[in-house]
Amino acid sequence: MKIALIGAGNVAWHLGKALMQAGHEVVAVYSPTANHREELAKELALAVPIKTLDLSASAVGLVFIMVPDAALSDVVASLKVPENSIVAHTSGSQPLTALQGVTGARTGVFYPLQTFSKAIPVDFKTIPILLEAEDEHTLQVLRQVAESISQEMHIVDSAKRKHLHLAAVFACNFTNHLLGISRELLQQADLPSTLLQPLIQETVAKAMLQHPFQVQTGPAVRHDQNVIEEHLELLRQHPSYQQLYQLLTQSIQAHKPKQ
Amino acid sequence: MKIALIGAGNVAWHLGKALMQAGHEVVAVYSPTANHREELAKELALAVPIKTLDLSASAVGLVFIMVPDAALSDVVASLKVPENSIVAHTSGSQPLTALQGVTGARTGVFYPLQTFSKAIPVDFKTIPILLEAEDEHTLQVLRQVAESISQEMHIVDSAKRKHLHLAAVFACNFTNHLLGISRELLQQADLPSTLLQPLIQETVAKAMLQHPFQVQTGPAVRHDQNVIEEHLELLRQHPSYQQLYQLLTQSIQAHKPKQ
Repeated sequence: MKIALIGAGNVAWHLGKALMQAGHEVVAVYSPTANHREELAKELALAVPIKTLDLSASAVGLVFIMVPDAALSDVVASLKVPENSIVAHTSGSQPLTALQGVTGARTGVFYPLQTFSKAIPVDFKTIPILLEAEDEHTLQVLRQVAESISQEMHIVDSAKRKHLHLAAVFACNFTNHLLGISRELLQQADLPSTLLQPLIQETVAKAMLQHPFQVQTGPAVRHDQNVIEEHLELLRQHPSYQQLYQLLTQSIQAHKPKQ
Repeated sequence: MKIALIGAGNVAWHLGKALMQAGHEVVAVYSPTANHREELAKELALAVPIKTLDLSASAVGLVFIMVPDAALSDVVASLKVPENSIVAHTSGSQPLTALQGVTGARTGVFYPLQTFSKAIPVDFKTIPILLEAEDEHTLQVLRQVAESISQEMHIVDSAKRKHLHLAAVFACNFTNHLLGISRELLQQADLPSTLLQPLIQETVAKAMLQHPFQVQTGPAVRHDQNVIEEHLELLRQHPSYQQLYQLLTQSIQAHKPKQ
């Protein structure tokens, strides 16, 4: 089955290569930006760069849409595909129904649960792929493709995927922000920004072995009011970090009230 | 120089073994709990378990105090050591002056910047050791010991160590709590709690390569109000998580205002 990639960003780059390495025929790469489609097509032996979203006369049987969420509805409005071909998007936050405007297609979601950067190689085998489809046949096709590139595959509907996305915002987006605050505080105290890295790595490794609530450490969970007040005083130049410190401390303490 | 360990918890366990492996003479292990001092002394070839804090008649030249912060002042009040021996605590949050009650000793801080569990082996070589001492000679002795067990050593005074501890609260304690919330949300949506692990690992790995504020992703930094409101609605059963979500979103957006 011939595959077309719509989009030539980070996801397209890594998924395209993984598909090619698994022996799939990736025949076309669309991007509105000439450089992008040409670069990625060059990486994928059989693929040609295309600048049209009208694939109706092609032999393509499977189309992956890998564009920013904000661009998805425009792509759906313009995309034309052969009757009964499969169209799947790769977004964690968009429902399956976001594709219902693609006439004649069977629709699905093929969501690789990872963050991608073009420059950083990934091992697709370890990336969970979350699947959803409008019918059993489409699901089977997507499942076979998923199994050819990854060892972990889950069927997750749009409603559950929203909960997953919310959980990821806490575990990744918010965590990243706290790591940023921490780094800023180190820099302001003229301490090397790498100093906490072994501790951060061990903290995350432990949080994977046990429920994080069970291995919580620090002044909040010890209800160590002296240290908490010292820390709030150190943050006096950063009222918004003070507020975060207080709210996170309260939330930790709500899980483990003072004995 | 003969070394005594005061405390037989996680830090004593790992530091004791690292000292022994580096060829130091660890001769005594104190703990008020018989089991604890006997178990650790058994692990350290030359050490004997002791149940007194009066070491004044011993040949000990270096004493490490590795007890919970709350127990430190009691230990300091009871500890007796030979004149001019060195006494160092291993706490990240206690100042050097916490040891000033130990009569006749030269005092220092020897803080291995890592979280320890007895059951999980650590590679001490990769753990940064933070040193402070009341005089240059004491610092030199502690520095030699530090360099014999670790590749990374920093001299950090008590004031700076407070800032470091604050940064660690954000990067480790608060991060751990967010990972706990994330896991709870996954469980409530009946999703496997391991599902986000590759994404979390990659997020943390990226945050070490670049400043986290520069690689921030997610609905907050995109100012994607639709998704933010959906997430707040999904959190309606958890008002305290809703508050955290809102405050963290505001803090992220304050670093990158809407264009």
